Amino acid sequence: VRIEIITIGNELLDGTRVDTNTPFIGAKLAALGGEIVRATTVPDAPEAIAAALERAVAEADVVVATGGLGPTTDDRTKQTVARVLGRPLTLDEEVLARVRAHFESRGAEMPEINIGQAMVPEGARPIENRRGTAPGLVMEDDGVLVFLLPGVPQEMRSMVETYVVPFLEGRGLKRSWEERLIRTTGISESAVAERIAPTAKRLARVEVAYLPGLGGVDLRVTGRGETLAAAARTADRAADRITDLLGPFVYARGPESMEEVIGYLLTMAGATLAVAESCTGGLVGARITRVPGSSDYFGGGVVAYSNDVKKRLLGVRSTTLRSAGAVSGETASEMAEGVRSKCHATHGLAITGIAGPGGGTPEKPVGLVYTAVASKSGTRVSEHRLRGDREAVRERASQAALDLLRRVLLGVAEE
Amino acid sequence: VRIEIITIGNELLDGTRVDTNTPFIGAKLAALGGEIVRATTVPDAPEAIAAALERAVAEADVVVATGGLGPTTDDRTKQTVARVLGRPLTLDEEVLARVRAHFESRGAEMPEINIGQAMVPEGARPIENRRGTAPGLVMEDDGVLVFLLPGVPQEMRSMVETYVVPFLEGRGLKRSWEERLIRTTGISESAVAERIAPTAKRLARVEVAYLPGLGGVDLRVTGRGETLAAAARTADRAADRITDLLGPFVYARGPESMEEVIGYLLTMAGATLAVAESCTGGLVGARITRVPGSSDYFGGGVVAYSNDVKKRLLGVRSTTLRSAGAVSGETASEMAEGVRSKCHATHGLAITGIAGPGGGTPEKPVGLVYTAVASKSGTRVSEHRLRGDREAVRERASQAALDLLRRVLLGVAEE
Repeated sequence: VRIEIITIGNELLDGTRVDTNTPFIGAKLAALGGEIVRATTVPDAPEAIAAALERAVAEADVVVATGGLGPTTDDRTKQTVARVLGRPLTLDEEVLARVRAHFESRGAEMPEINIGQAMVPEGARPIENRRGTAPGLVMEDDGVLVFLLPGVPQEMRSMVETYVVPFLEGRGLKRSWEERLIRTTGISESAVAERIAPTAKRLARVEVAYLPGLGGVDLRVTGRGETLAAAARTADRAADRITDLLGPFVYARGPESMEEVIGYLLTMAGATLAVAESCTGGLVGARITRVPGSSDYFGGGVVAYSNDVKKRLLGVRSTTLRSAGAVSGETASEMAEGVRSKCHATHGLAITGIAGPGGGTPEKPVGLVYTAVASKSGTRVSEHRLRGDREAVRERASQAALDLLRRVLLGVAEE
Repeated sequence: VRIEIITIGNELLDGTRVDTNTPFIGAKLAALGGEIVRATTVPDAPEAIAAALERAVAEADVVVATGGLGPTTDDRTKQTVARVLGRPLTLDEEVLARVRAHFESRGAEMPEINIGQAMVPEGARPIENRRGTAPGLVMEDDGVLVFLLPGVPQEMRSMVETYVVPFLEGRGLKRSWEERLIRTTGISESAVAERIAPTAKRLARVEVAYLPGLGGVDLRVTGRGETLAAAARTADRAADRITDLLGPFVYARGPESMEEVIGYLLTMAGATLAVAESCTGGLVGARITRVPGSSDYFGGGVVAYSNDVKKRLLGVRSTTLRSAGAVSGETASEMAEGVRSKCHATHGLAITGIAGPGGGTPEKPVGLVYTAVASKSGTRVSEHRLRGDREAVRERASQAALDLLRRVLLGVAEE
């Protein structure tokens, strides 16, 4: 099944907005086994929309267009589709009632201009919009399915998930593969490849994609099979093998974030956490508290950016700062122990380093970061040399700190 | 001048990667006065690339294609272009020398496979790649300019800025307009429109675009004129008028972030800052320390997520927490005063609220946030009711807190 995506809007061409609709739709329909043959972005101009649509219905089996369904005069998609497909616009009473109800539910009267939203090309079926007023439309023309969806990402996404995908499944599209995500950190892409490539190459009907990011390297393992169940078994077996080869570098077998994993481990251990941050300035705390319910195990901590705050609020000793320096394993240790004791937590996590761009020296270059975890069984320190600009170093540092905590909670040794 | 953008890569169609090249190129070339007539994304398949290219050279004056210039076998752009334009690939010795030098500068020998990168279509001029090995190419075919650029965003961006834009300016493209950015916060999009729309409508040769985000509403003011200088005067005058109408809601006249503005104001005032965060968990500190050199005015602070840490590290009184609650103006005040005193800063900034999804009550719903600033002239508290999910509330809350500090530093009253 050949699929073409058309996105409509001046704002997508002049750099005002990044087109996230194409990758969303592409991922969903590729997951059904469709082949995305082209994506075209055109301005809100009838000729441009018409040209793209004519070409798409001539070459594809399924066309998904987004944008240009709103009530304002910029929005010419429907008129153009009606003209290109030779289907005059007619008033759909059901859609009109729905648009009117949407306004009434907010205690407002429907503006005159919104009547246009109830005009649909002859023979087109409306798709309910659960997030807004403009309905989507589906019509079949000479065996080609054409979906018209709103451009607002959340409205479009909801329609794709609750209508377009089931509709296409009803037409017999189905995928023959399953994906598994494996998330790693603390190991480079090439080191991951060295460990797993020889095995991965020998696995039949399996593909492994490397997705490196600031938090580590994610692996997407795709298994294929005659049935979805067979594909799932192939993917699961492959993911198990690969996870074994990567050992403690794997922090999640699925889409969970590191902070969610940490939350789970702390909860399981009945432990509580306090954090002392220097170069990350609060990033680790912000990540931990992104998880709803994190107050069950996270009490807070100290952002100790200056030496003065390190001493005053965490009890780091002046002699340590003088002899070892603020960026040192010794300071990281004392910060972790200090915050653990001040906040009465079972575990104290600390981080100190040089994020750059300034502040580096030959002995202590930009990217040098120390992390430490203090607990009743002692304090463990880790040294990292991280790459990238200031934001990259800070992101990587926050991930490294959370990973050290993960390893301590799991009782895993460092490599 | 009609411009078409072609982006090449399976990863852009199957949802693995979002295409940020199109909006970048679109913005740069629209800024030169070009009209972006279409953007097409095609897979790494010769027929698809050829079809897109043939159509583009037939309809546009300038074609910019990105992707498919790497050394691996996926990369078929150059071969396809050579075929479509009837220009056989020939070895460019200068490019070869440059690719070889790139590897040697890293102490490595050039792999055989990279020789392909030095093959260029006859008559094409190479564009130096300062960030990688694959050179870009520019060629002219029947009056149509064709640029081939690498798909890696940072390599592509550098080439567009240092070569494509100057090249097109050399061909006489120039823009007839200037843009000014006005950043506001603490005021809704419709309230902004109410204040400025009547005036903005009357300004000749001026357009105002509303760009709402979690940190507030940005306004992009475009002025047009016969010359760039005239356009700049028009844009400046319009931006001045609009800024006057919005008064203290404007925090920046340009691309500066709120944390950069805060850094500037603290430095000017010779002031120092300490931060106490509850619901944002470190987000405010993370934002402040994103700015290089922030250690000059930011010492640190306390993440006081639990009541226990609020009392223990900030000296918030138990009676306050009991009578007014953790989410209250009283608690925000005591947090700000506590962190100011504990960290010996001139200004203490505090934030406490309910980020959701749980924890709301009819009297204190999700989104209720208090911010406070303590300084030697007293403590100022502000109440906010913020919309959105947990992350949105936290982002908006961090912006509201920084904005309160901005108003205090500027001596501006609240509305």
